[in-house]
Amino acid sequence: MENNKLSFSSDYMEGAHPQILESLVETNMVQTAGYGLDEFSESAKAKIREACSTPDADIFFLVGGTQTNATMIDAMLRSYQGVIAAETGHISVHEAGAIEFGGHKVLQMPHYDGKLRAADIQSCVECYWQDANHDHMVMPGMVYISQPTEFGTLYSKDELRSISEVCRANNIPLYLDGARMAYALACPENDVTLKDIGALCDAFYIGGTKCGALFGEAVVIPRHNYIPHLFTIIKQHGALLAKGRLCGIQFETLFTDGLYEKLGRRGIKTAEIIRESLANKGYEFAIETPTNQIFIVLDDRKAEELSRFVELGFWERLDEHHVVMRIATSWATQDKDVNKLIELL
Amino acid sequence: MENNKLSFSSDYMEGAHPQILESLVETNMVQTAGYGLDEFSESAKAKIREACSTPDADIFFLVGGTQTNATMIDAMLRSYQGVIAAETGHISVHEAGAIEFGGHKVLQMPHYDGKLRAADIQSCVECYWQDANHDHMVMPGMVYISQPTEFGTLYSKDELRSISEVCRANNIPLYLDGARMAYALACPENDVTLKDIGALCDAFYIGGTKCGALFGEAVVIPRHNYIPHLFTIIKQHGALLAKGRLCGIQFETLFTDGLYEKLGRRGIKTAEIIRESLANKGYEFAIETPTNQIFIVLDDRKAEELSRFVELGFWERLDEHHVVMRIATSWATQDKDVNKLIELL
Amino acid sequence: MENNKLSFSSDYMEGAHPQILESLVETNMVQTAGYGLDEFSESAKAKIREACSTPDADIFFLVGGTQTNATMIDAMLRSYQGVIAAETGHISVHEAGAIEFGGHKVLQMPHYDGKLRAADIQSCVECYWQDANHDHMVMPGMVYISQPTEFGTLYSKDELRSISEVCRANNIPLYLDGARMAYALACPENDVTLKDIGALCDAFYIGGTKCGALFGEAVVIPRHNYIPHLFTIIKQHGALLAKGRLCGIQFETLFTDGLYEKLGRRGIKTAEIIRESLANKGYEFAIETPTNQIFIVLDDRKAEELSRFVELGFWERLDEHHVVMRIATSWATQDKDVNKLIELL
Amino acid sequence: MENNKLSFSSDYMEGAHPQILESLVETNMVQTAGYGLDEFSESAKAKIREACSTPDADIFFLVGGTQTNATMIDAMLRSYQGVIAAETGHISVHEAGAIEFGGHKVLQMPHYDGKLRAADIQSCVECYWQDANHDHMVMPGMVYISQPTEFGTLYSKDELRSISEVCRANNIPLYLDGARMAYALACPENDVTLKDIGALCDAFYIGGTKCGALFGEAVVIPRHNYIPHLFTIIKQHGALLAKGRLCGIQFETLFTDGLYEKLGRRGIKTAEIIRESLANKGYEFAIETPTNQIFIVLDDRKAEELSRFVELGFWERLDEHHVVMRIATSWATQDKDVNKLIELL
Repeated sequence: MENNKLSFSSDYMEGAHPQILESLVETNMVQTAGYGLDEFSESAKAKIREACSTPDADIFFLVGGTQTNATMIDAMLRSYQGVIAAETGHISVHEAGAIEFGGHKVLQMPHYDGKLRAADIQSCVECYWQDANHDHMVMPGMVYISQPTEFGTLYSKDELRSISEVCRANNIPLYLDGARMAYALACPENDVTLKDIGALCDAFYIGGTKCGALFGEAVVIPRHNYIPHLFTIIKQHGALLAKGRLCGIQFETLFTDGLYEKLGRRGIKTAEIIRESLANKGYEFAIETPTNQIFIVLDDRKAEELSRFVELGFWERLDEHHVVMRIATSWATQDKDVNKLIELL
Repeated sequence: MENNKLSFSSDYMEGAHPQILESLVETNMVQTAGYGLDEFSESAKAKIREACSTPDADIFFLVGGTQTNATMIDAMLRSYQGVIAAETGHISVHEAGAIEFGGHKVLQMPHYDGKLRAADIQSCVECYWQDANHDHMVMPGMVYISQPTEFGTLYSKDELRSISEVCRANNIPLYLDGARMAYALACPENDVTLKDIGALCDAFYIGGTKCGALFGEAVVIPRHNYIPHLFTIIKQHGALLAKGRLCGIQFETLFTDGLYEKLGRRGIKTAEIIRESLANKGYEFAIETPTNQIFIVLDDRKAEELSRFVELGFWERLDEHHVVMRIATSWATQDKDVNKLIELL
Repeated sequence: MENNKLSFSSDYMEGAHPQILESLVETNMVQTAGYGLDEFSESAKAKIREACSTPDADIFFLVGGTQTNATMIDAMLRSYQGVIAAETGHISVHEAGAIEFGGHKVLQMPHYDGKLRAADIQSCVECYWQDANHDHMVMPGMVYISQPTEFGTLYSKDELRSISEVCRANNIPLYLDGARMAYALACPENDVTLKDIGALCDAFYIGGTKCGALFGEAVVIPRHNYIPHLFTIIKQHGALLAKGRLCGIQFETLFTDGLYEKLGRRGIKTAEIIRESLANKGYEFAIETPTNQIFIVLDDRKAEELSRFVELGFWERLDEHHVVMRIATSWATQDKDVNKLIELL
Repeated sequence: MENNKLSFSSDYMEGAHPQILESLVETNMVQTAGYGLDEFSESAKAKIREACSTPDADIFFLVGGTQTNATMIDAMLRSYQGVIAAETGHISVHEAGAIEFGGHKVLQMPHYDGKLRAADIQSCVECYWQDANHDHMVMPGMVYISQPTEFGTLYSKDELRSISEVCRANNIPLYLDGARMAYALACPENDVTLKDIGALCDAFYIGGTKCGALFGEAVVIPRHNYIPHLFTIIKQHGALLAKGRLCGIQFETLFTDGLYEKLGRRGIKTAEIIRESLANKGYEFAIETPTNQIFIVLDDRKAEELSRFVELGFWERLDEHHVVMRIATSWATQDKDVNKLIELL
């Protein structure tokens, strides 16, 4: 089962950070209640509440990102509402219609390096209400953003605040997908803390799957009971883990002694080294990204050549002779692999 | 985090069998593709195919039982069809409407100690087609059964064959929920093997969550490509695990050297000891069950007294002065706890 | 296109009462706004509000019964709730899963000649909330009844009041399907007026299709804005009629000079004549019904013989040699046809 | 109830063409079976089959356009598929999320005066299948177009054939929304006949509501049993009219002696007169349209001035000082009103 080829194709190729496995092993035979009603989960929730400065937050642990988005968006929308998202958002493209399966339209909007703009959201909501036929249309009922975005870019605190203000002024909730949150938090360019997110969003999740856990996403809803009966909604979506403690134990570990951000820093640091080396060698970046995803333009010959030694993620064909490839680092990226990659490039 | 009180309240109170944790630790830093496209999953599938004598089977790993039922039932039904199930079936009662969320009616039928009867299924299907108004009704599109049932009872091979015959004669698929399959397979009274199930069902799942794994259910579809695009359907249901290897590694371990059945036997053996002791002490059983769930009738005083020392599962109120309580054993049940329980009873 | 055979098979075999056609012809070339925003609809709503003593009621006109039930039930339930209904209710049996298509479970309960009992509803709701696992179950979110029922029986005012009290005590809305309301209102045994229904229900519809209109059902929601954005929900369900005026004109006519109840009386009077004659001739009734549906027991030979001369509705097979057949009268039933039927019987 | 103000705001402001009302009056007391199983519907179907040269076609009558689109699209797609449509298509914008309510994504694509291009469809399908992650995406499962489009434009026969060829080459069905079909058929610029549509589409509907009927849309599925159990699907969507004969009688009338196209010609002729007059007076057209919808650019003052005397449809704001208004003619447009409008302009 050895995998000799170098791989930078995604940030979920390994299991979990060893400390997480240790915690699972240590607690393995402790008997607990199921469905997240255990003490490990309670402890993890307390630590997350503190990290986010949201003392009254309801917190639920789900297993994966698409599941979390589909469950939360269905939970937050009324049946006749849709969710505003960038046309490049994960829910717009890569969730196999999970939002529509729940009966809701994704109101896709233009993106700027993967980000929505507050002004566009305001304009979308205004257009809806000013349209004489709006009763025949899908009502914008919430906003979905991701931090970092699917393009590896970051909302600045100003941008996030503007979006939050537009949402609050229009009385529609703001939901943030933090699948790769650790890499945002650890990024020098980032000025948005968990506390900011806790203050500016109505619901968000802190990603575990791509940030050192085996799996698991921690949903944070700053206002207690903002979404009544969410437990049942989670169950109805098939998203309730019997042994909820598994998420509890993992997030307890991630949010002890700063492990979550430490893991993020590893991903960021290795990305920075690779990015600098690429720049020095004259590679062209398709998008400027400060996080753990790097998008480079390669001509077909170079791409083919590289593919013999290293797996990268295919992003898109740029033109007849060039493609965009993604290099993803993570908490698990090894120095030796970074060095090998740089040699190859 | 010590839990001093004895607990027999369910079969998912611990983590996983230590061998499973070992496998996860050993393989932790191996890099693999996501979404179940890894070598561990391939190996696990091969072993399950062999165990079920279904060489062409499509196999998918999902995370939990409700998720698996909701996804598979939606995948197997056309939009205008419903699923026949016992009124006591898990999908009828305890899945928070997950089947209806997918747009399908559960056609609830009478149960006999938790089991459906072939003749009732035949009659349901006949009634539908003979009804002059059947075009205005929900068409029975598949049959859902569980082995063991929610009541801990078992279908005999004859019963299962009869149901399968009715299904095939009427051209509707048979789906079997094996959340606690290990305890059926390990039960002396049982005469239904995985091979039988592979031959008689159109789809079924082998439960991991309650049978020694951290989580995970292995869906087996004996005929290749019987459900086209199931991968996408799983994704659409939020049921696709990013690190699919986690299920692969766990089922690989469970299906190596007979571990799965060995774990089942532990649950059955401890249940037998408790059952015999209960019988000797004159306790009344609410249902005769040969598997790892025992249902006893207690008067309120006894129930209250016991509850101070041991957690049992509340099943139902029988009359003004009596309740039915469930004792569940599992792969993790300790001899010392069994002895303590027997002393208490 | 002559139909020489006598038919009592249903109450929607003709077009509309001639006065309704006259109204449609007279107003045909008047230009109005669409979607029910016209003056005819406004006038009809005003008359219905008065008839029901619900001055603040929101009123919407939909086209047919299944559509109305599916739309209203989806509009009144939260995503995780189900609707309590008799197992014989139209939504339980004859709507092809339209409620489940909207994502909701029909919580089917025992019936008494087609009726629900207040005590059973109370018990269902209590059982849910007392069940330790209720968070894993479908929450009872509203109650569906029909007046007259699918069996032609009537709730008395006392029965309706009891059900309403249970609903209000438990804070779940009561919805009444009045597809054949005219025949209830015109029935001597009936003591439930539109005003009673307006006072005791949270939403209900007054049926047009089976009571003299070409089509159309008038939904009445006594409390203004009780269901926000219902217009959009109706549109989303494909239930918004472009020329909403057609319903407006029809209900305007039905609720002018007591036409609606007059049409009901025709159906009731002819049913009474047939019922009396059947009793005199010694026929056995399968159910005692005071409205426009009569259910008689026939042996197979008699049923076959009759079927050569008159179409009746097949209801169910009673035993090996007997069937239950339905005789339905309506606003359109002719005296001569009643006489011919009596001769035949 | 007189409406003194001139109105060209839509093509569904009146009742029905008088011949249709006459047919309804004449047949009113004939007793028929319900749900479209009557002789009038049979006769109408036969005439439509002949008009479309589709001798084996399954034909169903539904009530309105959104209902028909939502039902047919749900019937034609598998659960994991979406429908390709122009971003300006009725289903993309003005159906309140009815397609998503059924669980399907509308895959919105760029439009050219309201039309899709065959090359874009081909490219969308290719992109899907070539994307390495397509299993995580919504599969394009059918194509939705309208003739005339929502912009009043027409597909030429060449354009329709190209789209049909792309669909057939990719094995995805083509569905055509013919809400205003009469105005396409009657248009001198049009070269697409019902026979062409019958040959090139897999399902389509011929609109009644906007083309002279009280209501009703005739769904034509050229290949018999192409969509099994469509009757039940229609019922499940709340779209089955109890007195199906009403659609049968109306379409029987419309398809006798060329009435349908005659009504179309009235709408086209009046539109032509208005269009010519507008051109002479120097008005600017926002889109070149050959059918019964005219889109003109007005400055705000002119728009305000006109609005005192004539109702037009508001289309969109063009810039700070100009709006686009829609003038719609129909089968019911009177010469005197056309003259008055021209005077006003």
